[in-house]
Amino acid sequence: MPETITPQPVRRRMAPEDRRRALIETGFELLGARHYQEIEIEDIAKMAGVSTGLLYHYFPSKRDFYVTVVREASHTLLQRTKPDPKLPRRARLEAVMSAYVDYLQEHPAGFAAVHRGAIGADPEVRAIVEDYSRVQIGRLLKDLGLKPGEQPVLELVVRGWLAFVIETSLRWIDERQLTPDELRELFVDAATALFRTALSRGSQR
Amino acid sequence: MPETITPQPVRRRMAPEDRRRALIETGFELLGARHYQEIEIEDIAKMAGVSTGLLYHYFPSKRDFYVTVVREASHTLLQRTKPDPKLPRRARLEAVMSAYVDYLQEHPAGFAAVHRGAIGADPEVRAIVEDYSRVQIGRLLKDLGLKPGEQPVLELVVRGWLAFVIETSLRWIDERQLTPDELRELFVDAATALFRTALSRGSQR
Repeated sequence: MPETITPQPVRRRMAPEDRRRALIETGFELLGARHYQEIEIEDIAKMAGVSTGLLYHYFPSKRDFYVTVVREASHTLLQRTKPDPKLPRRARLEAVMSAYVDYLQEHPAGFAAVHRGAIGADPEVRAIVEDYSRVQIGRLLKDLGLKPGEQPVLELVVRGWLAFVIETSLRWIDERQLTPDELRELFVDAATALFRTALSRGSQR
Repeated sequence: MPETITPQPVRRRMAPEDRRRALIETGFELLGARHYQEIEIEDIAKMAGVSTGLLYHYFPSKRDFYVTVVREASHTLLQRTKPDPKLPRRARLEAVMSAYVDYLQEHPAGFAAVHRGAIGADPEVRAIVEDYSRVQIGRLLKDLGLKPGEQPVLELVVRGWLAFVIETSLRWIDERQLTPDELRELFVDAATALFRTALSRGSQR
């Protein structure tokens, strides 16, 4: 519980869960704009229009807050990129990557903060990123009619493709060498080309 | 200068530059075996058979030591993967990736330590990794008859391919899904497939 409630910019009254979510969104934007090390918990409170005490009530430390922001960002991206089983395979991947590129356009700085994050070596952050990859890889394998462990080489290549996507996304955020549609096509074409390479070599293993 | 020279296991007498190099090699092996946070500068000294004072003489802090180890590792890998201009293009890339896979086999733990390093967000470490990427990308572009900046989309894809190679290397170190020869072929095939995708889309931009 907060010990003192200091005067603060009055915002509309929110339910605790909404307030928590608003704080996380603020944190996501702030992390995109500044380095983790430069951010003070007071800045987050000020930007969200709540007292530092209240922020500590929800998040005991800056690290807790950061980990929560990363977890929520990962969760949101997974929700938005859920494959639609009714679509044929290529259209399905196109729809997924289209949702992904939309997300990149809406939250370029937040995406970069999560993936270039200064505490990226933090075990909890790693676990979140690893979970994210595992879900995405599981979806892609399912799309190809495979179970995890059935095609180790293809899984290796799918992981590599995810790294390709993240790295090119980070560069694209800074340089915008392609239109969003072209970026989506590049991701889909790269997946097709790489998975074909893997399947031609890995099917006997 | 070391303040005290404590008794130590006697090793053969070495010139300062050789001793420095031996210390870096020890550090590289140690970083492969243990997490950065768990390593004490005393462990490195003990393993290398020198006094802590002498180690501090070469490296003022654990972080300095780590940064030097990463820089040397990056330098070694760049040296070993220098393309041979006398070879035709595909054979040249094969030779480069062959040298790269040889290196992975010799130093799996050290490679993983550099790329999963706990202080990977350290600005100096980032700069080293970024320099490494820039050199490798420059070489690949040169191989394709291009200068940096001439083909932004291809450069984006080359960067993505490097991320693909690093991620699959890290997984391969743990899981060995492929023989070393197959891994090298996968890298070369992936490069060919991805660069073709980029060239077909980026040539007008």
